[in-house]
Amino acid sequence: MKKKSIAVDMDGVIAQTSLRALEWYERDFGVKLTLNDMIGKHWNEFIPEEHQKTVWNYPRQKGYFADLPVMPHSKKIMRALHEKYELFITTAATQFPESYNDKQNWLAKHFPFIDWKHTVFCGKKSIIHADYMIDDFAYNLEDFSGEGFLFTAFHNMAEERFTRFDNWLEVGHHFLGL
Amino acid sequence: MKKKSIAVDMDGVIAQTSLRALEWYERDFGVKLTLNDMIGKHWNEFIPEEHQKTVWNYPRQKGYFADLPVMPHSKKIMRALHEKYELFITTAATQFPESYNDKQNWLAKHFPFIDWKHTVFCGKKSIIHADYMIDDFAYNLEDFSGEGFLFTAFHNMAEERFTRFDNWLEVGHHFLGL
Repeated sequence: MKKKSIAVDMDGVIAQTSLRALEWYERDFGVKLTLNDMIGKHWNEFIPEEHQKTVWNYPRQKGYFADLPVMPHSKKIMRALHEKYELFITTAATQFPESYNDKQNWLAKHFPFIDWKHTVFCGKKSIIHADYMIDDFAYNLEDFSGEGFLFTAFHNMAEERFTRFDNWLEVGHHFLGL
Repeated sequence: MKKKSIAVDMDGVIAQTSLRALEWYERDFGVKLTLNDMIGKHWNEFIPEEHQKTVWNYPRQKGYFADLPVMPHSKKIMRALHEKYELFITTAATQFPESYNDKQNWLAKHFPFIDWKHTVFCGKKSIIHADYMIDDFAYNLEDFSGEGFLFTAFHNMAEERFTRFDNWLEVGHHFLGL
């Protein structure tokens, strides 16, 4: 029987990209923020306007997507999902061409069972065809033709249209009954 | 009304990638082949076995995807299609990470109306969701959930399962009645 497919986002879902932004923000402005400070907010709500241009530019810089911390439990659950589902990584990378190599190397290191055939660097995710999608941005799920799940992030706390996963243990429970 | 979407392949459809391979083949082995020599064949049928490893490795080398000739009429027809359809470029690029920058620069130069949101670097194209797909490899069309069209190439002459476009004038005629 053909395996059902799951399209899994990268930043904010398996990679803790926000931690890199906070790390660089402290380096550049001497202010130490934590993920707790960000809860329920967008970046432009908790950093001063004069810092925002610098922060928006971070993803365009080499190294931003390198060595990112892995989202807790995602390695173990992804490996288990890989046995029963066809997993694709679908990441909105084409906005940041500098990110390609960092992202591919990071995937090869932490999720070596995801091969090039199942890696997708895209922009607008309406182009994605899969049975399920896990993403931290609601706008990516809006046009999706399969069943979309929202992975909780500081910026999506107010979103109520999609089934939500707060962490990877919940993903494992939902798809594998773990 | 929402525009219908078309997923357009790059190599062999809008880019004449085979001409680069023939150019490098002549450079490396002193044998001048033409597209006519290739009709109805796969590469391994018309080059000697001892040359094949070198040729298979071409796409992994920097510059292979740079400055490729544009497929005749594709610029004009693509620009006209862009008015009536949502166009995505869907290219199996993740096998060749060296190709990303060349491909993105080439698109920016020849098809500047295709933005990053509509550029997809992928592997297996079953992940693509669109109303129509134009591709030169039948295996990319096999699992596609929309309507697939085969763009004629030397290697797909025997394929009979899909509606075929021999050139971009036929694409314009079909989708725009030109």
